[in-house]
Amino acid sequence: MINTNGEETIEYIDFDTAYDKVLEEVDRILSTAPSIIRIYTSHLAKARGKFLRAYALLVCAMDEQGKVHPDAVIFASSIEILHLATLVHDDIMDNADVRRGIPTLQKKFGKRTAVICGDYLLAAALQSMLSVRDKNDYTNYQLPGYVERICMGELRQHINNGNIDLSLYRYLSIINGKTAALFEASFYGGGILSETDDDRLRLYRRLGRHTGMIFQLTDDCIDFETEEHIAKKNVQSDYEQGVVTLPLIYTFEKDPELKQKARTEALTRSEINAAVARAGGLDFTRIISRRYFDKACSIIDKLNLSAPKREKLMMILEKAYFGLKKS
Amino acid sequence: MINTNGEETIEYIDFDTAYDKVLEEVDRILSTAPSIIRIYTSHLAKARGKFLRAYALLVCAMDEQGKVHPDAVIFASSIEILHLATLVHDDIMDNADVRRGIPTLQKKFGKRTAVICGDYLLAAALQSMLSVRDKNDYTNYQLPGYVERICMGELRQHINNGNIDLSLYRYLSIINGKTAALFEASFYGGGILSETDDDRLRLYRRLGRHTGMIFQLTDDCIDFETEEHIAKKNVQSDYEQGVVTLPLIYTFEKDPELKQKARTEALTRSEINAAVARAGGLDFTRIISRRYFDKACSIIDKLNLSAPKREKLMMILEKAYFGLKKS
Repeated sequence: MINTNGEETIEYIDFDTAYDKVLEEVDRILSTAPSIIRIYTSHLAKARGKFLRAYALLVCAMDEQGKVHPDAVIFASSIEILHLATLVHDDIMDNADVRRGIPTLQKKFGKRTAVICGDYLLAAALQSMLSVRDKNDYTNYQLPGYVERICMGELRQHINNGNIDLSLYRYLSIINGKTAALFEASFYGGGILSETDDDRLRLYRRLGRHTGMIFQLTDDCIDFETEEHIAKKNVQSDYEQGVVTLPLIYTFEKDPELKQKARTEALTRSEINAAVARAGGLDFTRIISRRYFDKACSIIDKLNLSAPKREKLMMILEKAYFGLKKS
Repeated sequence: MINTNGEETIEYIDFDTAYDKVLEEVDRILSTAPSIIRIYTSHLAKARGKFLRAYALLVCAMDEQGKVHPDAVIFASSIEILHLATLVHDDIMDNADVRRGIPTLQKKFGKRTAVICGDYLLAAALQSMLSVRDKNDYTNYQLPGYVERICMGELRQHINNGNIDLSLYRYLSIINGKTAALFEASFYGGGILSETDDDRLRLYRRLGRHTGMIFQLTDDCIDFETEEHIAKKNVQSDYEQGVVTLPLIYTFEKDPELKQKARTEALTRSEINAAVARAGGLDFTRIISRRYFDKACSIIDKLNLSAPKREKLMMILEKAYFGLKKS
């Protein structure tokens, strides 16, 4: 649209429209891949997630009127495609059979295909970012740097596979890369579309990082709450995959006998779940998670946002803290 | 440097200095990776290649005085890191044990580690590109799009693994992605630092693409010329890996009996090499390669370049055509 001075004005769009456009854009990126790639990406389109990261980005991009810059749709779609890319490679790492209720790409088409498809999606996410209209305004927003951080988190998790001596501190630093980096990228990406002040942008980044930590710690707890008999076939628990998470780190500390036993033999899922419940591993994890939650709340206060933006951010925080299904 | 008008001037650097700086910069990117990644990347630094793509980029970036824009060093380093990323993932695909005389990352540290390290390098290459000084001048130079093309080529090669019915046309289209895309990116990246005219830039891209095709076809020939007993231990031929290349495509067409035999049993390396020699598969491949060579020469003529730039481009073409060792 051209204004009376002959300059092009930016048409901000309302939040719900933007969210719908992200869903469309992600589907478009997946479905307009060259035919050779499309077979695989259309499989992924079926496994659509909850777009929590895209949602958070749009919320952070909201202005006082509750509207968002049109580039927010591109940013949010890139983040979701990037997330999908990391899932495709994660599934290779974890040798996972099922994701979001459907067979993983690595299970259905093989690891080799999954390696390339993940690369393609990673490139597609970064290529999509280049289609924003005000490119030169966002030179500080560098997605590849976040991908580096995610990789470091993944690698450290992989190296610590089966490491029952993993410390609390190290574990938090792993998930800070593995999960929190992409949340930080989402909040930051939204922030730079609605804010200009560097201090405030730093707060958005920190808020995103805390939200990601909470999200991961909740996920860790859910893994222990799922009983073997109700867990879907082929879905292994973190422990069965050698991934040592916070509830178990705490349990090993409280229960040296269990830890000793774990050194020499593989424990069963029910044995582990019972020990974690006994030691209070989930309660401890909730306490750590709560600390991030409180810090996140105080950042939201400090940002002094409009009521609708504040409410939506609180809703995201609660989803992260209570789990996606419960809120 | 600040000129008399108080503007910052760009200090162009001479070609050889730029080339040395690329070597340093690639080492710097590999060695300043976070410690967890460095173990693996320092392994890769030992496997330093011939930097042909970086060299080509610098040549294309040369101005009339034989000097290059300082951003050419960043561009060229990104291309080499990107190339390294594709090799790390290729080796997973090919289950390769040795590359450039040292154990591959996937052999030494496992496929899972190699998946993440490849991702990290890909991200590092694209992140490095963001450190150019005149970012806003290069918005048309979009490396992620080239990564997409490389992935498509790789995926099509993988899908056609063991396909003895692969046609000439399809094969050329596979290597156009797999190999030629990155050469195109190199020539184009150099071109935009020395040229402004769109038509001329299109010629640089085409020249890069042709050079990549020649390079790959030469590589295909070398694979058949290597005798089993002199090939290094653990290095399989393309055919043994199921990769059907042009010399064999032609041989199968000329020798239907061999093709029939290949349908039912695995042929030995010497049997294949002898059949290719008998049918003239290498000569035919050279003829196809020569066509690209001639087209490339006529592009160089059309560009009407300074003598030193022209000479260097011809040298690259000859290296691609005759093989790296022979020139």
